Amino acid sequence: MNKILAKSLIDASEKRCICDLVIKNANVVDVYNKDSFLADVYVKDGYIVGFNGDRKASREYDANGRFLVPALIDAHCHIESSHLSPSEFSDAVVPNGTGTVIADPHEICNVTGLDGMRYMLKASENIPLSVFLMFPSCVPATPFEHAGAVLNAEDVEEFIHSERVLGLGEMMNYPGVAGADDAVLDKLSKAYENKKIIDGHVPSISGASLDSYVVADIKTDHECENADEAREKIRKGMYVMLRQGTACQNVLTNVKAVNAKNYMRFLFCTDDRQPQSITREGHVNYGVSLAIRDGLDPYIAISMATLNPSICYGLEDRGAIAPGKRADFFLTDDISKGLKADEVFLLGNLVAKGGKIIEKAEHVKAFNVSGRMDVKGFSIKSLELPLKTDKARAIEIIAGGVVTKEAIVSVNRDENGNWLYNDKEDVLKIAVIERHHGTGLSSVALIKGYGLKGGAVATSIAHDSHNIIVVGSNDDDMALAVNKLVSCGGGITMFKDGRELMTHPLEIAGLMTDSTLNEVTSCLDSMSRIAKIELQVSEDIDPFMTLSFMALPVIPKLKITDSGLFDVSSFCFVDISV
Amino acid sequence: MNKILAKSLIDASEKRCICDLVIKNANVVDVYNKDSFLADVYVKDGYIVGFNGDRKASREYDANGRFLVPALIDAHCHIESSHLSPSEFSDAVVPNGTGTVIADPHEICNVTGLDGMRYMLKASENIPLSVFLMFPSCVPATPFEHAGAVLNAEDVEEFIHSERVLGLGEMMNYPGVAGADDAVLDKLSKAYENKKIIDGHVPSISGASLDSYVVADIKTDHECENADEAREKIRKGMYVMLRQGTACQNVLTNVKAVNAKNYMRFLFCTDDRQPQSITREGHVNYGVSLAIRDGLDPYIAISMATLNPSICYGLEDRGAIAPGKRADFFLTDDISKGLKADEVFLLGNLVAKGGKIIEKAEHVKAFNVSGRMDVKGFSIKSLELPLKTDKARAIEIIAGGVVTKEAIVSVNRDENGNWLYNDKEDVLKIAVIERHHGTGLSSVALIKGYGLKGGAVATSIAHDSHNIIVVGSNDDDMALAVNKLVSCGGGITMFKDGRELMTHPLEIAGLMTDSTLNEVTSCLDSMSRIAKIELQVSEDIDPFMTLSFMALPVIPKLKITDSGLFDVSSFCFVDISV
Repeated sequence: MNKILAKSLIDASEKRCICDLVIKNANVVDVYNKDSFLADVYVKDGYIVGFNGDRKASREYDANGRFLVPALIDAHCHIESSHLSPSEFSDAVVPNGTGTVIADPHEICNVTGLDGMRYMLKASENIPLSVFLMFPSCVPATPFEHAGAVLNAEDVEEFIHSERVLGLGEMMNYPGVAGADDAVLDKLSKAYENKKIIDGHVPSISGASLDSYVVADIKTDHECENADEAREKIRKGMYVMLRQGTACQNVLTNVKAVNAKNYMRFLFCTDDRQPQSITREGHVNYGVSLAIRDGLDPYIAISMATLNPSICYGLEDRGAIAPGKRADFFLTDDISKGLKADEVFLLGNLVAKGGKIIEKAEHVKAFNVSGRMDVKGFSIKSLELPLKTDKARAIEIIAGGVVTKEAIVSVNRDENGNWLYNDKEDVLKIAVIERHHGTGLSSVALIKGYGLKGGAVATSIAHDSHNIIVVGSNDDDMALAVNKLVSCGGGITMFKDGRELMTHPLEIAGLMTDSTLNEVTSCLDSMSRIAKIELQVSEDIDPFMTLSFMALPVIPKLKITDSGLFDVSSFCFVDISV
Repeated sequence: MNKILAKSLIDASEKRCICDLVIKNANVVDVYNKDSFLADVYVKDGYIVGFNGDRKASREYDANGRFLVPALIDAHCHIESSHLSPSEFSDAVVPNGTGTVIADPHEICNVTGLDGMRYMLKASENIPLSVFLMFPSCVPATPFEHAGAVLNAEDVEEFIHSERVLGLGEMMNYPGVAGADDAVLDKLSKAYENKKIIDGHVPSISGASLDSYVVADIKTDHECENADEAREKIRKGMYVMLRQGTACQNVLTNVKAVNAKNYMRFLFCTDDRQPQSITREGHVNYGVSLAIRDGLDPYIAISMATLNPSICYGLEDRGAIAPGKRADFFLTDDISKGLKADEVFLLGNLVAKGGKIIEKAEHVKAFNVSGRMDVKGFSIKSLELPLKTDKARAIEIIAGGVVTKEAIVSVNRDENGNWLYNDKEDVLKIAVIERHHGTGLSSVALIKGYGLKGGAVATSIAHDSHNIIVVGSNDDDMALAVNKLVSCGGGITMFKDGRELMTHPLEIAGLMTDSTLNEVTSCLDSMSRIAKIELQVSEDIDPFMTLSFMALPVIPKLKITDSGLFDVSSFCFVDISV
């Protein structure tokens, strides 16, 4: 609030001036009392003035008794996972009723460092969606791979004072916190000193170990695996998020922890939602809908996606339909079976209707984050995999998740001991090529369960360091795929028999594009089809997302980085040959 | 939180150093899940480290399975109403389980201006009780009387940046807000600019009129008169306080508005609690106990006095028993029938046991706020009341509240037309004498229903301007009483037949004293007895508090100020003669 706005709102409320908009005959969802009431809702200068009272307004919109729901708040997401630039992301999620996201630009900062923060802030400044950022706390996410940047406590300083930076992003370094590492404490201190929030990330940590993390004032967690874990984290003062991402989902397990006594400590988030998931299912509203269909009171479910995050993150100007709050809301027929946004208003402007945006969001051309492909010394020779024995360790994909197993496989070798592809076995070569600093680093390993028969798939989305990852049956196609990504500035590509099958360019940091959600979804659908039909990638996995998680050395069991094959259980690199 | 503390707490949690205290075998009240759990609670450096985990501690305190409750937070109070200086107030309320108060030094600032803020901040700095202040928004409270100071928006500036000043105190000027008065908006803006809170005060305002007030981001109200009013204020985004003061009480009416869907929007407060009420009934715990005995779930009731105010006022370091929170809590046998604090710990120190403090709070000698008695030109002549007719308008006391009626009474007059006391009628003279700026202003009127037969009672507590108010049957005793207060720096005094019956000196601004709660209670008890027996003040009123409210020209119907008899309904001065 500020004086000019306050005066204008009071004057409008007192009928000394005319309102800009009235939503007539709305069944207003009251997230404070968890019920609804029929009213005309008056708006001035983008804010709600009040209810009824025979005020005048220059525009009228008749709700015809439909529900008016506060716009939803996504408490934690990585916009990069949508493959979309912030303006396109806005156009993608706003029609689902999302009004605000709290985004951790962890991915783009792993590639481009502080330039990523600057770009994400600027590109999300004047779009209908409110985007707040958390400064990524863990760049790089691991010392076992080379990311594009190292962000320290001093780097936080440039951004932490911004009103749009709410704090420090998910602190994934549990050992660093429990060990009271100086560098970690320095980052946390930036949040302490500026009275900002620290998001958490502590899967499966409980008991006294959880105390050592929460005691550092880490406020949220979105990694609960069951209701007991959620209740313990609530008990220790954390806000627990129900997450409905594409690969990682816990709404239906964690909603069992929600009850009449504790619902105010739960939030909803999407974390990582792929473009196809947004297109087919929706955004935060999808997670909320799942919870409602599972039996959660719709008013409580809505408050968990509106009022609760506004309180948790200090966003006092939103999260409810009440005088003085932003006129961010949507109309819908029914809330008892889920949430579908019909007309969406942000700051009192009709911005989406029937799932479509009214006007495209203002676009900011990417600056300092494009074409980040500093690959040196890569050649087809880099892909050779010399083995000492006929038995080898392979990453084994578990369909439907991001966790892998270790498989011991029998292999064929050529006269020099190099691995040879055997089309009778579902074992392929997988390689990671460092792309940020021209170090020339790359590593090659084996993967089981991907299904591909001939050809190669490569992507520059490879959590969390986002080097180039490539899988294939032969070095020629793999090298072509890698070189294609280098030349186009990143993305996803497929080659077979020396021929480019299709490419999805992600020119912004190799992670995102300026294409629309529909274009990206349609491209990825086509590519998935081609991957399944022409390359015979296993039916039960997502060909690209699966690949993107094979370089994430914080999730068990076996992963590959630019420095070798990594065993997450023992936290060390391991030999491929057994 | 800060880096040094975080490191120490983490180290203690991880057993790299020893804790200071463990409360063994506690039944810990979990305000997040609204239940309790048995645990050993470890404390280091005044903060809670965690539960169980085989840690070591240098001191042990066995709870023997009793409940461990977070220390209570009084969301709104005027310390001055206790008659006690901040250190004595701490000693008075801490044994009741109060750990934090949010105090509006409205009374002392009406007498001493910014010196009052400075004194209250300093005097409450190093005491066990945490005292946060709200900058008084309405000094003077009314233009119809002369207070000691006028505080403007610029005056807010010196204090608003303090961590211990949470915002702007109760905005009582509803017309000023709804009228968008520039001076009022300037004060509100100080809160907006510094992201601080604005407390409200809007009795009986509803509908579109309420919108015009809430729209200015005014966050709380403690004046609801019934459950419907509370629910509407909740619906419009306010936090509603259940108040158990001495004269004004609404816990039992407003608790009817609390339900499973909205309990997180309610707080408890004491507002104005007299010393005798604190002695006999307790402090915030008394209001909480009333609500529990009325059937409110004890865990919800406790959360309304702990977690909810911590969220509303951004006091994130307290309000729950969880890792990283202040070790402010108390032990009690039972929570099902009310809240009685047995042992109270603040910052992990045992500060009270069995209703008694362990060690007196550090006292700060009052500076710049003592002996504020600038009365000029007062004499017995000032008390003459010339009347034009034999019919006069009198203030009529309504027992048990602060509202009055207007009575038309028949009067006797002397040869000069001056009012004459008639011991057959319960009509007395009442006068207000300006004491802040030596203006020489005073006014005299009539009051019905006080009961006194011969003598005079005077006090320098006279809401909200706190001039001297005196009631009596004869000018001699009245003048003696006034002069006594002038000479002793303020307080409450009684005279009869030229003799001082008893005096309760309030040397700090004429409102507070450095005596203890017991001393003050005992003094007031004696004075009440004398007032009833020797002066025959009506049995059904409090002789002193009743008098203190007769000069408050914002509460109907007829009141007296230093400028004359004031009709609150018509908002203008009126003649005494009819």
